[in-house]
Amino acid sequence: MSLLQQTIDAIRPADAAARAAAKARLDQLIMPHWALGRLMDLAVDLAGMAGTAKPSVARKAIITMAGDHGVTAEGVSKYPSEVTPQMVMNFVAGGAGINALARLVGARVVVVDMGVAGDLSALAKAGKIVSRRIAPGAANIARGPAMSREDAARSIEAGIGIVNELADQIDVFGTGDMGIGNTTPSSAIIAAIAGITGDRLSEITGRGTGIDDAQFKNKVAVIQRALDVNKPNGKDGLDVLAKVGGFEIGGIAGVILGAAALRKPVVIDGFISTAGAMIAHLLAPTSAQYMIAAHRSVEAGHRLMQKVLGKEPLLDLNMRLGEGTGAALAMNLIEAAVRILTEVATFEEASVSHAKE
Amino acid sequence: MSLLQQTIDAIRPADAAARAAAKARLDQLIMPHWALGRLMDLAVDLAGMAGTAKPSVARKAIITMAGDHGVTAEGVSKYPSEVTPQMVMNFVAGGAGINALARLVGARVVVVDMGVAGDLSALAKAGKIVSRRIAPGAANIARGPAMSREDAARSIEAGIGIVNELADQIDVFGTGDMGIGNTTPSSAIIAAIAGITGDRLSEITGRGTGIDDAQFKNKVAVIQRALDVNKPNGKDGLDVLAKVGGFEIGGIAGVILGAAALRKPVVIDGFISTAGAMIAHLLAPTSAQYMIAAHRSVEAGHRLMQKVLGKEPLLDLNMRLGEGTGAALAMNLIEAAVRILTEVATFEEASVSHAKE
Repeated sequence: MSLLQQTIDAIRPADAAARAAAKARLDQLIMPHWALGRLMDLAVDLAGMAGTAKPSVARKAIITMAGDHGVTAEGVSKYPSEVTPQMVMNFVAGGAGINALARLVGARVVVVDMGVAGDLSALAKAGKIVSRRIAPGAANIARGPAMSREDAARSIEAGIGIVNELADQIDVFGTGDMGIGNTTPSSAIIAAIAGITGDRLSEITGRGTGIDDAQFKNKVAVIQRALDVNKPNGKDGLDVLAKVGGFEIGGIAGVILGAAALRKPVVIDGFISTAGAMIAHLLAPTSAQYMIAAHRSVEAGHRLMQKVLGKEPLLDLNMRLGEGTGAALAMNLIEAAVRILTEVATFEEASVSHAKE
Repeated sequence: MSLLQQTIDAIRPADAAARAAAKARLDQLIMPHWALGRLMDLAVDLAGMAGTAKPSVARKAIITMAGDHGVTAEGVSKYPSEVTPQMVMNFVAGGAGINALARLVGARVVVVDMGVAGDLSALAKAGKIVSRRIAPGAANIARGPAMSREDAARSIEAGIGIVNELADQIDVFGTGDMGIGNTTPSSAIIAAIAGITGDRLSEITGRGTGIDDAQFKNKVAVIQRALDVNKPNGKDGLDVLAKVGGFEIGGIAGVILGAAALRKPVVIDGFISTAGAMIAHLLAPTSAQYMIAAHRSVEAGHRLMQKVLGKEPLLDLNMRLGEGTGAALAMNLIEAAVRILTEVATFEEASVSHAKE
């Protein structure tokens, strides 16, 4: 059986007993009932994922998946593809947004070349990045599929493999992306899955790195063409990924499936990461129980993606960078939730007067 | 001149040159323009407060102000006043929500007895809390003023004094509160300042620690009575505080004014802390430039308070605990903002291709 199928089969629902035990403790904490709101909801979720009312979340990693996109030939982005490998080098040098925020929350950043249009072999040999490259960029989805169905499965399995290798070292995974042009396949993915075409495509298409009105109109047309040319089957995760996706999006889907199979939480970053989450969810709906939505991106289609996944984001700070920056920020809230569950006294422990009946 | 007047006179607007310098650097960071949204807005604000594009925010303290309220005699709270000193003991033991969250973000918790209805002198002597007690609880605002105008000034000066003593040790202050019954004076404060009476009082009155419908109706009536009996002048901060406030709310206003005079950011916690911020704002409108709204509380009147102050909160997590818990959570975002400003490379520094023209 393939690693992908094995992983999907290994994903079990969250542990109801651990959820109940966490809830029972939180119900009795020395504060008005449920006064820390969503932190407490999150603590229950984390207990259910880990299968214990004392989940560990101290060891964190952001897996930042990099890949290029042939669709940039259609003028969908403000930046050239060469920025993708340049940004990978910046990640390695520690000077990017994700480096600063991951340092703050004590998360390791694992940068993965899933298929960048540039030679990063020296960085891979030096152990600075992980190489799982499938091709130097996905093909132009406006003219045909992004990749073969086999390569789609390979890209997901690359993500699973990375999580499995880190299983003993990491408690919480976060996803991140880098790939010039990758808001276009991400919009195409939500369009394919939610059945959106025509005029409504502009509602789930964003400005990416900051394109103008004419470029935006072109981008919407390119997404429509990608759907028309490829006819992705919105119920088949591998088909959607192969036809209108990208290698880094497949890698992200793999990180999510791998984390879910290990019963570890996976913090979903922004728009591109959530596109990966949509693929993971199609392949294994139960994986959604291990997903935590970090934030709401400025990108137009993000709200609909989160609605389809049934996820309410923790943060809403007008961000649209990707790289895993939102996931890194949210990791502090995840640790906060566990601290509340494990460090705050109950009324009984603290001998404080209960509420009047 | 009084310490209060000296402090008010010392508050200067944020530094426009430092704001411009921060903005100029953020404009050039190696990411799509302003892609970290509100973190970047916050970084500009922090630079303006500190008067430098490299603000320091590493040393943090939450000042948790405790005080009791005679208005609990009117049945406005689900808990008895004795819970206030019990919770202070829990803060000292390290078992409360604020302890867990402050430990997570590396903030010191300074607990201040501003006027608790219980004897905490042993804790004060042992140096576990700071005693600035004015009386064992504010008077019942449904029957007369909470305190004299002189005591209102004293309570604010107590907060200023604490900040001044910590000036050399702390970069960022956060506010917190503990006081059974203190959502009632907080609602009365926003009602007095925004001129809200009659039926509309129910829009700015919340459920506090979790009262039922009958108790809620009674609470609204008590707030109306407090306004009718005391006739606070909504343009005079000392008058509002004296007539319908509380000692811990005055202390919080003092922390805010003191921090603003020192050009240090002060993170405003939830509903009660924001009531203190409204008093500070009335006394010194410029102090608002040093306030950061941590989160949006579940308490009904919080949104209007933040609107009056012109502050958009950073977090919205269904919280309503107080103690400084929201401020502690927001401190991670404040540190994140400064890390972005000071640790992320510019395009030039990283030699990455610029956007196409």
